[in-house]
Amino acid sequence: MADVTVDTVASVPVAVIGAGPAGLMLAHLLGRAGVETIVVDTRTRREIETTQRAGILEADAVRDLVETGVSDRILREGHEHEGTELRFGGRPHRIDFKELVGASVWLYPQTDVFTDLADARKRDGGTVHFGVKDTEVLDITTDAPRVRCTAVDGTRHEIRARFVVGADGSRSMCRDLVPEGRRTRYGKEYPFAWFGILAEAPTSAPELIYAHSEHGFALISQRTENVQRMYFQCDPNESVDAWPDDRVWETLQARVAGQDGFRLKEGPVVERTVLRFRSFVQEPMRWGSLVLAGDAAHTVPPTGARGLNLALHDVKVLSDVLLRALVDTGEAALDDYQPRALQRVWRAQNFSYWMTRLLHTVPGGTPFDMRRQIGELDNVVGTRSGRAYLAEQYTGWPTRPQH
Amino acid sequence: MADVTVDTVASVPVAVIGAGPAGLMLAHLLGRAGVETIVVDTRTRREIETTQRAGILEADAVRDLVETGVSDRILREGHEHEGTELRFGGRPHRIDFKELVGASVWLYPQTDVFTDLADARKRDGGTVHFGVKDTEVLDITTDAPRVRCTAVDGTRHEIRARFVVGADGSRSMCRDLVPEGRRTRYGKEYPFAWFGILAEAPTSAPELIYAHSEHGFALISQRTENVQRMYFQCDPNESVDAWPDDRVWETLQARVAGQDGFRLKEGPVVERTVLRFRSFVQEPMRWGSLVLAGDAAHTVPPTGARGLNLALHDVKVLSDVLLRALVDTGEAALDDYQPRALQRVWRAQNFSYWMTRLLHTVPGGTPFDMRRQIGELDNVVGTRSGRAYLAEQYTGWPTRPQH
Repeated sequence: MADVTVDTVASVPVAVIGAGPAGLMLAHLLGRAGVETIVVDTRTRREIETTQRAGILEADAVRDLVETGVSDRILREGHEHEGTELRFGGRPHRIDFKELVGASVWLYPQTDVFTDLADARKRDGGTVHFGVKDTEVLDITTDAPRVRCTAVDGTRHEIRARFVVGADGSRSMCRDLVPEGRRTRYGKEYPFAWFGILAEAPTSAPELIYAHSEHGFALISQRTENVQRMYFQCDPNESVDAWPDDRVWETLQARVAGQDGFRLKEGPVVERTVLRFRSFVQEPMRWGSLVLAGDAAHTVPPTGARGLNLALHDVKVLSDVLLRALVDTGEAALDDYQPRALQRVWRAQNFSYWMTRLLHTVPGGTPFDMRRQIGELDNVVGTRSGRAYLAEQYTGWPTRPQH
Repeated sequence: MADVTVDTVASVPVAVIGAGPAGLMLAHLLGRAGVETIVVDTRTRREIETTQRAGILEADAVRDLVETGVSDRILREGHEHEGTELRFGGRPHRIDFKELVGASVWLYPQTDVFTDLADARKRDGGTVHFGVKDTEVLDITTDAPRVRCTAVDGTRHEIRARFVVGADGSRSMCRDLVPEGRRTRYGKEYPFAWFGILAEAPTSAPELIYAHSEHGFALISQRTENVQRMYFQCDPNESVDAWPDDRVWETLQARVAGQDGFRLKEGPVVERTVLRFRSFVQEPMRWGSLVLAGDAAHTVPPTGARGLNLALHDVKVLSDVLLRALVDTGEAALDDYQPRALQRVWRAQNFSYWMTRLLHTVPGGTPFDMRRQIGELDNVVGTRSGRAYLAEQYTGWPTRPQH
């Protein structure tokens, strides 16, 4: 590798692998403090912008996006949700976040968060290379790590940095750079996946509906007035081809059906994806000059909407310790990163696991499992404490004073 | 069977199979309302009194025992606990029931509850036959069911009743009388059991300690100033012979060890038992003139101390509907029993299952499971809502106004 010719060499304090929300938000936060970054991603901007992802942001994350000057579009186009609905036994049960824990979440698609961040990088003169190939991260056990990649135009770049941040998502190659004998990987697979659709239909409900039913889980979400996002639990090996519109709607309607006669408003299904997921954490989150953030270090099942929020929390902590490492106290500041990030990671791992188990039917599960789930849902919605316990986890343990 | 000779025939409105706390409390409550019962049990009074069982009563159950005139001994010899300790990561975390949900529980052994109830039956002239054999329950699909059994002295009794209550515990024969095609049995086995000891040692802690550790679960309870009750998670096939005192104490100490230097006060181990357990519910809880109550209808793992309390709740509801059935509205009143009892049953089933999963290590469990448990324990103790969610379930959703 030492002899590979490169066309350009750039030096920045921090090189970032991955231009998703975690990588771009980190670059944005560092940029505001005068620390230059170069961000690279194998995906094109268009690929990232058109891949449907999560849609729920914690109020703290919204505040950070707005107050740090990324964009205030979310305030104009996003929707604040002051609660959500748990639906089971054919009945709706509202969890009132605002009243219970003084918090709210915002419906604003991750693709829009990405667009805002990418636009802000451009506006602020930050460097982001989309669609690169042959990315290599070198010398991470030294204090002069390098990133090499081939840009869209064929130019071979070398980025010399003091730190490299691996924010390259759930299929991260950066995390593999921590040597096998020195890393621990924690994980859990689930015997189900989500069938996600986009439908051209009017909004069916003002807030998200998490539905437990004997037929399996469903989540009713929204995108715009005319486009809705919905999911239902399916087999991980399900094929999208087997699901014409009628079958999709029949399945969704059965899972939200209830004594209140609730019906989803239907319309053409314009996108179908099977979303497989797992629980995963890799430790350590730092190896020499390489630091992992977001999905690269940990992924969660989508139930409970923690993934994007956890990634944004990581980079908030990380920008703080990187600034201290670069400006003040040197490398030792980075020792704070993992302990500060990890407690929230494991709490969110548990919440995501718990919400998943609470709401999904387990293939081959026993009647006991189903009845116990109803008992658990009764416990959660049945008292203020139960509702608040869910609400504070769903809204992300906001940093404002506790109620 | 029709031709079996009986020596005595007695007629009472309600015959009760099982003289544990559920059966005796039901007989007591009915007796107060002038409804006569005959209670039979295959065990001798001494057998029941010397079998160590649960030790935690909800405040509501204590109030019922005292206010209905069973005995006020609990107020003199029991100990009110206004909280409990969750211990994990080597640190103690107190759950303050009183402050969180305005409730408490009482430490008072089930054997003492039994003694109080048996004495009250004797005092009030109620009939209880201990140590009977060859119990048969006949004609439950008619409105003239009968119970036959052989008393200790060899006398063959027949008890004619309007209703028969099966309160014959977790190895109930009454529940088998509901025909196989007409009953549903829900259940779950656990891959661990509890090793329970009685030790002649001073009290180690003022309240119960539920300890999670990498070595497995332990529960530190009390009996008197000089006798302690403790448990630790073990293999269901563990043999008590393999556990000399030293090994017992070493195991318990390792599971409660922590950064605070906490140590149990040791002493001779005077009793050892392996307690296997499972989750179980049978529906319906009524079949013709037979009604099931307590462990006969549902058993829970001991974690969370729900079993005895749930049984006492059943018979409180049951005495109410039986009185209405016998005095006022006839048999239809019994239709209320299952719906009123079952919601609590399934909430308690879930709580017992949840506390069990929260605190025990699963044999063959992954490092993910262990870390996630710590994440969950952090979530529970980390906020007021989490602590209150546990507290209100542990104290049994008390019937006083909600806080």
